[in-house]
Amino acid sequence: MEVKEALQQLDLLEKKLYALKTADSALYLDGTTVAPRGTAEGRGIALAILAGERQKLMTGEETGKLLEFLSAQKEELSFEQRRQVEELYRAYHQIKSIPADEYMEYARLTNEAGDVWQKAKEADDFEMFRPSLEQMVVFNRKFAGYYDPGKKPYDALLDDYERGVDMEFLDRFFAVLREKIVPLVHAIGQKPQIDDSFLYRHYPVEAQKKFADYLMEVLGLDRDHCGIGETEHPYTLEFNNKDVRITTNYKEDNLTFAMYSVIHEGGHAKYELGIRDDLQYTCLAGGVSMGVHESQSRFYENIIGRSRPFIEAIFPKMQEFFPEQLADVTAEQMYRAVNRVEPSLVRIEADELTYCLHIMVRYEIEKQLIGGTLAVKDVPRVWNELYKEYLGVDVPDDARGCLQDSHWSGGAIGYFPSYALGSAYGAQMLRNMEKEIDVWGQVTKGDLSGVSAWLREKVHQYGGLLEPADVVKNACGELDPTVYTDYLTEKYTELYELN
Amino acid sequence: MEVKEALQQLDLLEKKLYALKTADSALYLDGTTVAPRGTAEGRGIALAILAGERQKLMTGEETGKLLEFLSAQKEELSFEQRRQVEELYRAYHQIKSIPADEYMEYARLTNEAGDVWQKAKEADDFEMFRPSLEQMVVFNRKFAGYYDPGKKPYDALLDDYERGVDMEFLDRFFAVLREKIVPLVHAIGQKPQIDDSFLYRHYPVEAQKKFADYLMEVLGLDRDHCGIGETEHPYTLEFNNKDVRITTNYKEDNLTFAMYSVIHEGGHAKYELGIRDDLQYTCLAGGVSMGVHESQSRFYENIIGRSRPFIEAIFPKMQEFFPEQLADVTAEQMYRAVNRVEPSLVRIEADELTYCLHIMVRYEIEKQLIGGTLAVKDVPRVWNELYKEYLGVDVPDDARGCLQDSHWSGGAIGYFPSYALGSAYGAQMLRNMEKEIDVWGQVTKGDLSGVSAWLREKVHQYGGLLEPADVVKNACGELDPTVYTDYLTEKYTELYELN
Repeated sequence: MEVKEALQQLDLLEKKLYALKTADSALYLDGTTVAPRGTAEGRGIALAILAGERQKLMTGEETGKLLEFLSAQKEELSFEQRRQVEELYRAYHQIKSIPADEYMEYARLTNEAGDVWQKAKEADDFEMFRPSLEQMVVFNRKFAGYYDPGKKPYDALLDDYERGVDMEFLDRFFAVLREKIVPLVHAIGQKPQIDDSFLYRHYPVEAQKKFADYLMEVLGLDRDHCGIGETEHPYTLEFNNKDVRITTNYKEDNLTFAMYSVIHEGGHAKYELGIRDDLQYTCLAGGVSMGVHESQSRFYENIIGRSRPFIEAIFPKMQEFFPEQLADVTAEQMYRAVNRVEPSLVRIEADELTYCLHIMVRYEIEKQLIGGTLAVKDVPRVWNELYKEYLGVDVPDDARGCLQDSHWSGGAIGYFPSYALGSAYGAQMLRNMEKEIDVWGQVTKGDLSGVSAWLREKVHQYGGLLEPADVVKNACGELDPTVYTDYLTEKYTELYELN
Repeated sequence: MEVKEALQQLDLLEKKLYALKTADSALYLDGTTVAPRGTAEGRGIALAILAGERQKLMTGEETGKLLEFLSAQKEELSFEQRRQVEELYRAYHQIKSIPADEYMEYARLTNEAGDVWQKAKEADDFEMFRPSLEQMVVFNRKFAGYYDPGKKPYDALLDDYERGVDMEFLDRFFAVLREKIVPLVHAIGQKPQIDDSFLYRHYPVEAQKKFADYLMEVLGLDRDHCGIGETEHPYTLEFNNKDVRITTNYKEDNLTFAMYSVIHEGGHAKYELGIRDDLQYTCLAGGVSMGVHESQSRFYENIIGRSRPFIEAIFPKMQEFFPEQLADVTAEQMYRAVNRVEPSLVRIEADELTYCLHIMVRYEIEKQLIGGTLAVKDVPRVWNELYKEYLGVDVPDDARGCLQDSHWSGGAIGYFPSYALGSAYGAQMLRNMEKEIDVWGQVTKGDLSGVSAWLREKVHQYGGLLEPADVVKNACGELDPTVYTDYLTEKYTELYELN
C-alpha cells in the first residue's frame, strides 16, 4: 500500500463515518421533534442497524490495517492527517480491546436501562433501577481495564470524557470548590433573598419565540446555518460546521428557561460552527471534549448571559417583547433575578453558584462506585448525605435525588465532572480575554463579536485537531480553580452584599 | 450454504436496505422542512455516501450469491420469501446489467441536471436544459437495452415504473381518453363557467391547519403514526407502516390547495399504513407501483374528495372553520367550485377532467424521444402543438411549457403514464366497491371507514407482495379505460348540464 492510496482510503472511511453519524443525527432530530408518538420502533430498528454498521466499520480488519499502516508512516503525513490517524486509531483500539460479546451485551443493557431508569424515576423506586446500575458499574469498571489497563478504572473513564483529567487532579479541583463555595452559599442563606417573582408571570410562547430569535442574533448565530426547534429537553445537534441545530422548550410561566437554554445551546452551536472547514467530514470536526464544550455553553450562558452589562444591553429589547410583564421591572432587578442563588435538589435547575456542588456529589459517588468502596444499594443514602453536607438541603425522595439524571442509565460514568471543569475553564478564558479585548465595553453595547472572535481563535477553530489539554492551555493557561472561585466570590459577594 | 442460514442473511440484507432508506428519508424530510437554507452541501455528501453504500450492498458478490442460491431453492421458501427474492434479484440484475462507470456517470448527471433544470425553468431557457435532457434520453435508452434487451427501450422504461404496461397498451388506453375527453372539454368550454371565486378569499393558515387536522381525522389517519408537515411541494414519505409523514403548503388566498393536497397525500399515506406487518423492513413493504399508488391518492382526492356526498358531509365543518369566508356559500356551490373545469398550462394545477390530457402530452413526447423519432431540440414545438390540440391552450413560454416538471431532470422517463393509469384504476375500483358496499350512503355521513376497509383488503395490505397487475386485477378486474371515461362523462355532463 502506498501512502497516497492509504490516505484516499482514510478519506473514504471518514466520509462513511460522517454519513452514518449524519443519518443517526437526522433520525434523532426527527424522533425528538416532529415524529408522531407511535413511531419509535421502526426508527429504533434503523438506528440499531446503522450503529452496527459503524461498529463493523470501526473494528474491521481493513480499518485496522489502514490505521496501523498510516500510524507507521506518520512522518509522511501532515499534522492534520496525523491527528486524524491518532484519534481513529485510539477509537479503534478502544472498541477492539472490548470482547465483542461483552460489547453487545453492554449495548443491550444501555438500551434497556434507559427505559428502566425512566420508569424507576417516575415511580420513585431506586430498587427498580439498582440492578441496571450495578451492571453498569461492573461493565464500566471492566471496560476501563480493557482499554486502559495501566490506569485505575475511574481514571480511565474520566480520561475518556476529558483526556488528561484524573482523580488526583479532580480531588484537588473539587477541594478548592468545596472550600470556597460551600461557605459562600451558607452566607447567602443568611441574607435577604432576591425577588425574582416577575420571571414567572405569563410569557406567551409567540413572544418568547421572537425573543429567542433576537438572542440568536445577538449571539451572532447565522440562521442559514443554525436552526432552532422545540424539544422536551433542550440540546445542540451538530451535522457539520455549516449545519447546527439547537432546541429549546418554551414555558409560558417562565421567562428564563427558554432564554438561558437558547444562550447555553447557542454557545455549543458557536463552537461547532466555528470549527475550521478543512477538518469537516473527519473525526476532528467536532468539539474536542465535553469539558471544553461545556466551557463554551456556560461561558455564553453564565459569564456573559448572566452579567450585568449583558442584561443592561438587552433589557430594553426584553421590555419590547414583554411590555406588560416587565413594565414595573428595571434592568438591575432583572440582573439580580437571573442570578438568584438558592440551594436546590435538581441539578438542571441549579443556579450558577450552586451548580458545581451538584456535580461534586456525583463525582464523589462515581469515584467510590467504580473504586469499589461504595455499593450501589448505598447510593441513595450517600447521595442524600452529600446534598445535606454541600447544599444544606434534605432530599425528600430518590426521584428528586439520585434518580434525577439519565447519565448513568446510558452508561455515562465519568462524564459529570466535565460540567464543573467547563465552568472553571470559562472563568479562566474570561480573565485571559479581558487582557486582550475590552470584553465588558463591548458586551454593554450588546456586541458579542469580539468575544466570539476571541473564542473562535483560541478554541473553536481547532475542533479536535489539538488535544483537549492543549486547547485548554491555549485559552486558559494552567488550570487554577481559584480563578473560578474568585470569579464566583466576587460576583456573589457584590450581589448579596456579603461584605 | 443452508436455506435457513441464507434466509438469515436475506433478513440482514433487507434490514440494511431498510436502514439506508430510512436514513435517506430522514435527511430528505429534514432538508425539505426545517433544515436551514445553507445546509445542503453537508447533507448532500452524506446522501451520496449512503447511496453508494446501498449500491455496493445491492451489487455485492455476496448479495449476488445469496440471491442466486435462494432463487434456486424457491420450493423451500414461503410465498412471501419467494417474492422477496424475486424482487431483490430483479433489482440486483437491473443494477448489475449496467456497467459501473456508466452508472456513476448517470448518477452524476441526474445530480447536476436537477440544478440545471431549476435554473433553466427560472430563466425560461430550454436551450440551457437541452444538453442535460439529451444525455438523459441517451442514458435511459441505453440502460433499458442493458436490463431488458428483449423489449423496445420505451417499453422497458414503462415496465420499470408500472410492470406489465407497454406502448401497445398505452396507445389504446390514451386513444380512448383522447376520443372521449377532448370533446367533453370542448363542450364545457361552450357552457357558462362555474363561479369558484370564494375559494380565493382570505383563509388564515391557523384555521387551515385545524381544517387539515379535521380532514386527516375524516380520512381515518392515526396521528400517532401519520405526521403532517409543511413543504413547498406536498409529498408523502413512508418510513414503515407505523410511520408515514405527509406534507402540505398552506396558501392564505387559496382554500383548496392545502385541502386537496392533504386528501391526496392522505390517500398515499393510507396505502402505506395499510400494508401488512409481516412485510415490514423488506423490499415488499411499500406500495407496489406508481400507478397503484396514484390510484389511491386520486381515489381519495377526486372520486371521494370531489364527490357531492363528501362535500355535503364536510361542508358544515368547513363553515365552522371559516365562518365568515363561507357565510354566503352553499354545499352545492362548494361542490361545483371544487370541480370547475378549465384547460390550463400547468399539470399540477389541473382539474380532474383535464389532468390526463396533460399526461398524454408527456407520453407522446417521451415515446418519440426514446423511440428516436423526435429530437430533444424539437420538444418545445411539439409540446406546444399537443397542448393546443388536446387542451386548446396556447403555451406562452417553456417555463409554463415543457420545463414545468422536474421528472425528466431526475431521469424519470416513463413515469408520467402512471398518473393517468392511477386515475383509471380508481374509477374501476369505485365500480367494484359499489357492488359490495354502500359507498355513497356512508360517504354522505362523512364515514370513510367502509371505503378504507375495502381498499385495505383489496390493495393496501399486499404492499409489494403481489405483482402490480395482480393487485390491479384484484381491485379493478380487467382494465377498461371506458369505465374511467364513463365516470368522467357522467360527472361532468351533470355538472355542466351538457345534455
